[in-house]
Amino acid sequence: MKKDLPHLMTQHNLDALVILGPDGLGAANTAFTYFTGGTHVTQGTVVVKRVGQGDSASIESYLVHSPMERDEAAKTGLQLVSAAHYKMQDIVLQAGGDRLAARVEWTRRLFADLGVKGRVGFYGADSVGSTFAYLDALIREEVVEVVAEYEKDVISQARETKDAQEVALIREACRLTEGVIGRTRDYLRTHTVKDGVLIQADGSTLTIGDVKAFIRREEAAAGLDDPGCIFSIGRDASVPHSSGTLIDPIRLGQTIVFDIFPRLAGSYYADITRTWCLGYATDEVVQAYETVMKVHDTLEQVFDTQRMSYEFQDMACDIFEAAGHRTIRQDLSVTNGYVHGLGHGFGLDVHEPPSMSLRGVRPDEPLKTGTIVTNEPGLYYPDKGFGIRVEDDYWCNPQGLFECLTTFDRSLVIPM
Amino acid sequence: MKKDLPHLMTQHNLDALVILGPDGLGAANTAFTYFTGGTHVTQGTVVVKRVGQGDSASIESYLVHSPMERDEAAKTGLQLVSAAHYKMQDIVLQAGGDRLAARVEWTRRLFADLGVKGRVGFYGADSVGSTFAYLDALIREEVVEVVAEYEKDVISQARETKDAQEVALIREACRLTEGVIGRTRDYLRTHTVKDGVLIQADGSTLTIGDVKAFIRREEAAAGLDDPGCIFSIGRDASVPHSSGTLIDPIRLGQTIVFDIFPRLAGSYYADITRTWCLGYATDEVVQAYETVMKVHDTLEQVFDTQRMSYEFQDMACDIFEAAGHRTIRQDLSVTNGYVHGLGHGFGLDVHEPPSMSLRGVRPDEPLKTGTIVTNEPGLYYPDKGFGIRVEDDYWCNPQGLFECLTTFDRSLVIPM
Repeated sequence: MKKDLPHLMTQHNLDALVILGPDGLGAANTAFTYFTGGTHVTQGTVVVKRVGQGDSASIESYLVHSPMERDEAAKTGLQLVSAAHYKMQDIVLQAGGDRLAARVEWTRRLFADLGVKGRVGFYGADSVGSTFAYLDALIREEVVEVVAEYEKDVISQARETKDAQEVALIREACRLTEGVIGRTRDYLRTHTVKDGVLIQADGSTLTIGDVKAFIRREEAAAGLDDPGCIFSIGRDASVPHSSGTLIDPIRLGQTIVFDIFPRLAGSYYADITRTWCLGYATDEVVQAYETVMKVHDTLEQVFDTQRMSYEFQDMACDIFEAAGHRTIRQDLSVTNGYVHGLGHGFGLDVHEPPSMSLRGVRPDEPLKTGTIVTNEPGLYYPDKGFGIRVEDDYWCNPQGLFECLTTFDRSLVIPM
Repeated sequence: MKKDLPHLMTQHNLDALVILGPDGLGAANTAFTYFTGGTHVTQGTVVVKRVGQGDSASIESYLVHSPMERDEAAKTGLQLVSAAHYKMQDIVLQAGGDRLAARVEWTRRLFADLGVKGRVGFYGADSVGSTFAYLDALIREEVVEVVAEYEKDVISQARETKDAQEVALIREACRLTEGVIGRTRDYLRTHTVKDGVLIQADGSTLTIGDVKAFIRREEAAAGLDDPGCIFSIGRDASVPHSSGTLIDPIRLGQTIVFDIFPRLAGSYYADITRTWCLGYATDEVVQAYETVMKVHDTLEQVFDTQRMSYEFQDMACDIFEAAGHRTIRQDLSVTNGYVHGLGHGFGLDVHEPPSMSLRGVRPDEPLKTGTIVTNEPGLYYPDKGFGIRVEDDYWCNPQGLFECLTTFDRSLVIPM
């Protein structure tokens, strides 16, 4: 949580954090969004300075912003520094048009004014090549000690646990997303069936593309950003991240994997999957579905903050293997069976730490109080043309209990 | 254009390009999207290898993809390499759980298999700290010669000119966006007026938030991604990038700056601005609007591929200053007057090279055949509570002529 930052900065021996904020779709740079909230700030830099040590440490947070965005910048609640103050154009001219040298000089002046020195960690998402050249130049010119944390960095660690305000936003994202799932189910049911496929009022075949357009409109109406969803049927459903073939018809009796992960505009995600068979399901699919649900329900009962997170993946593999399915634990390149991890954290990104995957793949740790994780076992049979996944979201509350945030009906068959 | 890549790679003395593709909202990593198209590939790495030199050079392009996304990966048309082939988990275990060391080893194996060696440029948008640590380790371990281009890198240079397929997508984005602008104008006009503000059918006041929700729904229905738009009125309109205050009413006679820049789902942007006054406009606003349009229309006549791009900004400043307005050329921190650049390129990003701004701020070059640029003069008077901007999009066609792609009615006053 944000309140852990002073402590985490002391622990990582960091004097300051600099979060680069690129132009573009703001919320794709989520380390930046973590500090600026959902405001429409499309460029700038966040600087977090630590004052004091350990328990008595506190932080001062600044936003260097474009003068054109001063009103939006003011909404962030950060202390404001207008980039115009530094007259970048003059610095570029003094540097003989060398924009990299000018950026280094600009940084030197900014840090001097804000009192930033010592060990400084750099974060955010930015252009790979130019950012490497910039940080390399800061090191060469001895502006500060550049710290590049490879993983488990200060900001990821803070973000791994969510505070009350964040949980409220994620709850809201889940609630709105479940609304979209419900309306999509109702929409499917309004169609007639001819020769086993869904038909629209004008007599044309309903396609995956039509359903996706419906979902998209419903998301927009609910105020959700749509990064694209998975709505795939039959063989497509058996490839976990196949998003579906737009021209395919919707056929009764085939599995539909509907994995929807929108976010509140510029803010927090939900991540929910339902598997549906319209009209009826084959015995083979029903049996596989029951195994998936057995894993789902067993695991949601055992989630705790004591076990290592990979133990949950092990338990899932135990159940699947006992039921005769191949798993990724037995063979990393398995494509028929249980082929992925049990779940993952999310928040401002749709995939965040922690991860419930095989031992050794990710840092081996228990789940933490305040974490938000998915529980999403699945079975995939491209050779048989079906796939199944059921995914719900959980919050580990201050009592260490895992509350399910997503309660939408998990039935496999939707009567037509 | 993509076809320039072999030549550009020879010119930059690069043997290969590696484009890192992070998880998350795919299209925010546009260097990656440039190669993968609008497909739903959410992770992976693109490797472009140059074969031969100069005019006889060609490229081979690979996508290292997750096995879970193999169907989506196949749609990119790139040569496929499944990440599963390298058994990352085994490499992590061999590296004693050191995931950075494991990633370096993974890279070494991948490059050996693809025959990548020599000078390798790195691109894409990715997490700043971890990417720096990774590239630094590649250098230290002498895996390849890491080239970090600060600006005017190979991919940006290729992207600065658009091929026929890209222009067709941008035309389509413009057409759909103009549809949204038109429906928004019609929507405003359906409202009644009471005490100078717009009123909804239920008697409540129409707010900026209501209008933005309408725009959002219209964008979704048109298949456009919405990164948020600017719909700001009165004093807000006088701060160029203020996105508008959601609870504000819509008052007659005030300037509304409507700057809308959606993209085709996961693909190319449009970027259009209209300024409207509902019912009537004051003389002061009309006069300022005529000056803005004089700049707009004069500049669109003179755009060419001979002058340096900063000359167009100079011409715009000449006209504004002659009409008695302060400009950013006179004072970089001006807030009342003409406060920004004349225009910019766009494509997969809403801001791309080239830039028509002051001399020395950006590389001094002419506009190129194949470029797409905006023409967006404006006047801003926070002290008087109004702002004006009119923005259209142009393509420099193979004959070197600037075709306007956006023809939506530019009238200031919308009769109510």
